[in-house]
Amino acid sequence: MSQEADFIAALRGLATSPAARGLADDAAVLEVGGRSLVLTHDMIVEGVHFLPDDPPADVAWKLVAVNLSDLAAKGARPVGALLGYMLGDDAWDRDFARGLAITLESFGLPLLGGDTVRGAAGTKRALGLTAIGEAAGPVPSRAGAAPGDHLWVTGSLGDAGAGLRVLKGEIAASAFLVERYRTPRPRLEAGAALAPLVGAMMDLSDGLLIDARRMAEASGCAFEIELSSLPLSDAFLAAVGEDRRFAATAGDDYELLFTARPARATEILRLSEEQGLPISRIGAAASGRGLSLTEGGESVPLPARLGWEHG
Amino acid sequence: MSQEADFIAALRGLATSPAARGLADDAAVLEVGGRSLVLTHDMIVEGVHFLPDDPPADVAWKLVAVNLSDLAAKGARPVGALLGYMLGDDAWDRDFARGLAITLESFGLPLLGGDTVRGAAGTKRALGLTAIGEAAGPVPSRAGAAPGDHLWVTGSLGDAGAGLRVLKGEIAASAFLVERYRTPRPRLEAGAALAPLVGAMMDLSDGLLIDARRMAEASGCAFEIELSSLPLSDAFLAAVGEDRRFAATAGDDYELLFTARPARATEILRLSEEQGLPISRIGAAASGRGLSLTEGGESVPLPARLGWEHG
Repeated sequence: MSQEADFIAALRGLATSPAARGLADDAAVLEVGGRSLVLTHDMIVEGVHFLPDDPPADVAWKLVAVNLSDLAAKGARPVGALLGYMLGDDAWDRDFARGLAITLESFGLPLLGGDTVRGAAGTKRALGLTAIGEAAGPVPSRAGAAPGDHLWVTGSLGDAGAGLRVLKGEIAASAFLVERYRTPRPRLEAGAALAPLVGAMMDLSDGLLIDARRMAEASGCAFEIELSSLPLSDAFLAAVGEDRRFAATAGDDYELLFTARPARATEILRLSEEQGLPISRIGAAASGRGLSLTEGGESVPLPARLGWEHG
Repeated sequence: MSQEADFIAALRGLATSPAARGLADDAAVLEVGGRSLVLTHDMIVEGVHFLPDDPPADVAWKLVAVNLSDLAAKGARPVGALLGYMLGDDAWDRDFARGLAITLESFGLPLLGGDTVRGAAGTKRALGLTAIGEAAGPVPSRAGAAPGDHLWVTGSLGDAGAGLRVLKGEIAASAFLVERYRTPRPRLEAGAALAPLVGAMMDLSDGLLIDARRMAEASGCAFEIELSSLPLSDAFLAAVGEDRRFAATAGDDYELLFTARPARATEILRLSEEQGLPISRIGAAASGRGLSLTEGGESVPLPARLGWEHG
């Protein structure tokens, strides 16, 4: 096991409350006075989750968006946020605060509190956000998939990964792809509308294949994914081509992965049309364990690397 | 204004929800389904809030305790926590996890979720905790003091500041003082019992004088503090002597500062006896503005430095 996996395993023993969902879900779900509060806390670190020359306003957006994406995956409406901010240089802080204002306004997200600290000299900055949401109904987990379910994904895959390659100068410039990397759009409306229809739901942060394997494991079933069905954007196709293995493992998608009974397909496609958001069927759940891949119906081996292992 | 004050002023404009209390209180107070949730997020940074050679288990304790102290000041019972953890070296992480287990168990605090990230190479570690509490009744703010109120403080002052001086080798060793610095005890029971009796209440983190001035400002009244009434521990007296100016400005006390109508004095002293926790009357609120100091009833000037300015 990795060092991180060891640490998380140690924490899991401490997370005995049902609200913690065994630390195996996107968020905690706390029942308070007959209401379901959904709580998540994600950190981003300079040099790891964002680049020192990323625009500070985009870093503010990303910090908020990755947390709201967890709420989206639980079908929750954002209620407020607490910010853990490490000061850096003055101009960067000012731009961050302006970006945060725009971000919070965009999402109608009230800032409720938090903490501002100085970093030690020469340190890379670490920023944290706690997002609090409220779910209108039952809160889907990662563990609700059942054999026979269809497997679906919102939006398109691999755009953010391609955007990072643009920023590294590896592929031709594309404003769309860079935007998908720097300012992901949490699927809040889709998540809220899908929550009553799904078996399991989670957001995609580390790569479709690794996240799908986590969902299959949590649900105690097998997933089969058909590579050719993975949705790609026009910008991705133009910049990268039909490299669906890259799209399936690149991470940072912040799309929703979910399963639903086949009888739900019509409703899901209607919802997709209403919201103007592509929702694509990419596979199915079966009895058994593990993740398998087909391409044009033929079984193909899984890539050696399924995504980012850190989660 | 300092850089931090500028940044916080910029955030204040974003914190328009009443739950945020204008970012001027110890915690946010969110009304959910007729219940009062109290939410706080504090970060601690290596080299700033803890020392690289502090025992990792004590760092875990302090991270939890400083957050629970905010809940105590709002009279809230802890309900759960989310951890934002930056991995470091393996042995440190393991000791931190063990210390966290002991800490959570001590406080009966469920771990609900959070995030684990890798730091960038060579970075100092930053750790964050979000604590969620629930208040049984109205939640005291910093703004509730009124002229004529008595001003009170729990426990003893300056012990943690003296403990830091022990660790720096400036004064003779004292296990008690070091423990007060490394493993503060949030006054949860006292806070919950005091909440219905107080005008204003807050926890002391940056130094009595600076925190008292903040409370007076938030309440729109003046505070007069009698230096000779500040409670000192036997260990402090033995190690530092009767240096009440040091005790009043050293910070890291994590005691409760509160005001109450004079008619509450008997109840407060009875509560102090029941809980075995000293509660000392140290001054009074008056009409006007600002903070003034007396010593043996004679007006004396305020020290040039009132405490830690970062808050």
